[in-house]
Amino acid sequence: MDPATLKALIFDVFGTCVDWRSSVARDVAQHLPSTDATAFAIAWRAEYDPSMARIRDGGRGYVPLDDLHRENLDRVARDFDVRVPDPEALNRAWERLDPWPDVLPALARLKPRYILAPCSNGSIGLMTRLARYAGLPWDCILGAEIARNYKPEPAVYLASCAALRLKPSEVMMVAAHNDDLAAARAAGLKTAFVPRPAEHGPGQASDLEPASDWEIAARDFEDLADRLT
Amino acid sequence: MDPATLKALIFDVFGTCVDWRSSVARDVAQHLPSTDATAFAIAWRAEYDPSMARIRDGGRGYVPLDDLHRENLDRVARDFDVRVPDPEALNRAWERLDPWPDVLPALARLKPRYILAPCSNGSIGLMTRLARYAGLPWDCILGAEIARNYKPEPAVYLASCAALRLKPSEVMMVAAHNDDLAAARAAGLKTAFVPRPAEHGPGQASDLEPASDWEIAARDFEDLADRLT
Repeated sequence: MDPATLKALIFDVFGTCVDWRSSVARDVAQHLPSTDATAFAIAWRAEYDPSMARIRDGGRGYVPLDDLHRENLDRVARDFDVRVPDPEALNRAWERLDPWPDVLPALARLKPRYILAPCSNGSIGLMTRLARYAGLPWDCILGAEIARNYKPEPAVYLASCAALRLKPSEVMMVAAHNDDLAAARAAGLKTAFVPRPAEHGPGQASDLEPASDWEIAARDFEDLADRLT
Repeated sequence: MDPATLKALIFDVFGTCVDWRSSVARDVAQHLPSTDATAFAIAWRAEYDPSMARIRDGGRGYVPLDDLHRENLDRVARDFDVRVPDPEALNRAWERLDPWPDVLPALARLKPRYILAPCSNGSIGLMTRLARYAGLPWDCILGAEIARNYKPEPAVYLASCAALRLKPSEVMMVAAHNDDLAAARAAGLKTAFVPRPAEHGPGQASDLEPASDWEIAARDFEDLADRLT
């Protein structure tokens, strides 16, 4: 693949750019000091995919992820048998996720050459606030809300390319998750894998290696920037 | 109005943030050296509002402004009886508009305190490329494409607030055009007027003064930043 044909890089965010697990656990610990904060964060995240499934299947209209997170918080609090004193405030934990240490230096190197945008399942508002918190230098916010659907539905990748008025082949999806890249490739995008072996904590068994011949399999974001600049 | 209640500032772009007239004329002069470039730029811009009218009226589905500009370029070239050698390239003049000199310093002062975004009739792709060219430090791109409609339809202002998950009263529209502010106010937003007496060149007769009691009537963007920080 010739990098000269690429015009934009679009990024998965949760897990790929930011460490949701320890960041959410930090906020859970403040709101629920007697609860196992890491277990609570993992359980909260585990509700993420099932909550989007009905929307992908057409059984429910588009609901922004902020609202799904809020519904899922109630569910997890019931499972943990705890009362959250200020659930709206705790729900905003998803707007305060720390970037992995290689992300900001690499994005600064990539930005002069490529349009950079998230292609996340997070809403425009969520991605905007997270970018301001974490310092992510996005040029615009793409992803689920543009398409009013959720990854890995092809509409999300295609709507993101269309919003930039680019062909899918001019756009590279960057993710730490092989299933995200498989869906992006099926939609015609270029693909780059960056492993995040600490995303799910010790003992992570998934997505440790690229599962296909993605155009790029990088060690980290700095390595990605080396290959694309 | 208490600035502490404001969470986001959204901006008209063409005319308010950037000088479309002399910037487009500069590119027209390169593409059509024998043509009156300023007259051509003004004629091209004059087709802007009529071309959106059918879409606002529902007589035509949403078409991004890039494509309307392209159609309008053909019309103006016919009127001027000229052949444009590379119309696609000339159409990209709208992605290369210079900011007024007060804009970037003021936005840098406002950015730590407020979410900043365009609420323009330009598409996401157009606003993204223009921001990269001009150095506009937007947090996200709002406006027409989010709503798939054109200002001054209320849907455009309301969709922009909704994308940020803010109430209209928490958002201030900044514009050099009184009609834009009137529509924003009718939708419930706060309003700030900044005059751009050179937008239309010597002899400009419109929008020299605030036409109503907008929450802020500033001298320029620096004055706006003084009042809001």
